[in-house]
Amino acid sequence: MSQARLGLKIRLHHGADVAMGPGKAELLAAIAAHGSISAAARVMGLSYRRAWLLVETMNRSFTQPLVSTLAGGKRGGGTQLTALGEQVLRRYQNLCAKAEAAVQQDYTELAELLCSLPEEAD
Amino acid sequence: MSQARLGLKIRLHHGADVAMGPGKAELLAAIAAHGSISAAARVMGLSYRRAWLLVETMNRSFTQPLVSTLAGGKRGGGTQLTALGEQVLRRYQNLCAKAEAAVQQDYTELAELLCSLPEEAD
Repeated sequence: MSQARLGLKIRLHHGADVAMGPGKAELLAAIAAHGSISAAARVMGLSYRRAWLLVETMNRSFTQPLVSTLAGGKRGGGTQLTALGEQVLRRYQNLCAKAEAAVQQDYTELAELLCSLPEEAD
Repeated sequence: MSQARLGLKIRLHHGADVAMGPGKAELLAAIAAHGSISAAARVMGLSYRRAWLLVETMNRSFTQPLVSTLAGGKRGGGTQLTALGEQVLRRYQNLCAKAEAAVQQDYTELAELLCSLPEEAD
C-alpha cells in the first residue's frame, strides 16, 4: 500500500507533435531556472541536441516561441522563457495540478484494493 | 487547432509494477467482451504471451485476482472478470473520466495558444 503511486501524464498533442508534456514542462522550468538550454539539459540528463529539439518543437507549436535566445551582449547566448512561455508553463502546471486533485479520492479508494508489498530493505 | 488533442495517461503504480493503466484497462474490457484472453489479445493486436503477462501482473497486484479462467466444462477455458476485476475496471474508468472532465476548460484555453496547422489532405 505504501508503495502505491498515482502516475498522471498529460500531453497536449498538436498534429504529429507533442506541444507540451511532462518532459517539455520540466525543460521549460529548468531553462527559466538556469538561463541556458545547455545547463537545463545537463541538470535533466539530456543531450544538448535532445533539449534543443524539444525547444524547437515547442517553439513551432505555439503562435509564438516559448523560448528565446539572446545572441551576443555581455552575457552572450542567454536563453529565457518568453511571456508566452511563462504563460504556457503556468497553465500546463495548473492543468496537471487540477487533474491530480480531481482524482485524489478515487485513487485512494482504488489503492486500497492493492495487496501489501513487503517493505524494501534499504 | 482542430488537430489539437489532450492525451491523459493515468497509471496506478504498485512497487515496480503498473497495477492498472490504459492498456491493462483496455485488456480487461476486451476480456469481458470476448470471454477469452486470446480473443482479447487478437482484437488489441497483442501476442497471447503479452496479454497473459499483463493479466498476471494485475492478478498479483490486487488483494484478489481480477481475471479468472474456468478450466474444462462445455465451454472449456472460458475466461472472465471477477467481481473485483469489474470493480477495479469501473473505478479506474471513472477516475480517468473525472480527470478529463476536471481539465477540459484549462485544456481548451491552452489549445487556443497553439498555431494553426494546415488541414491534412486525405
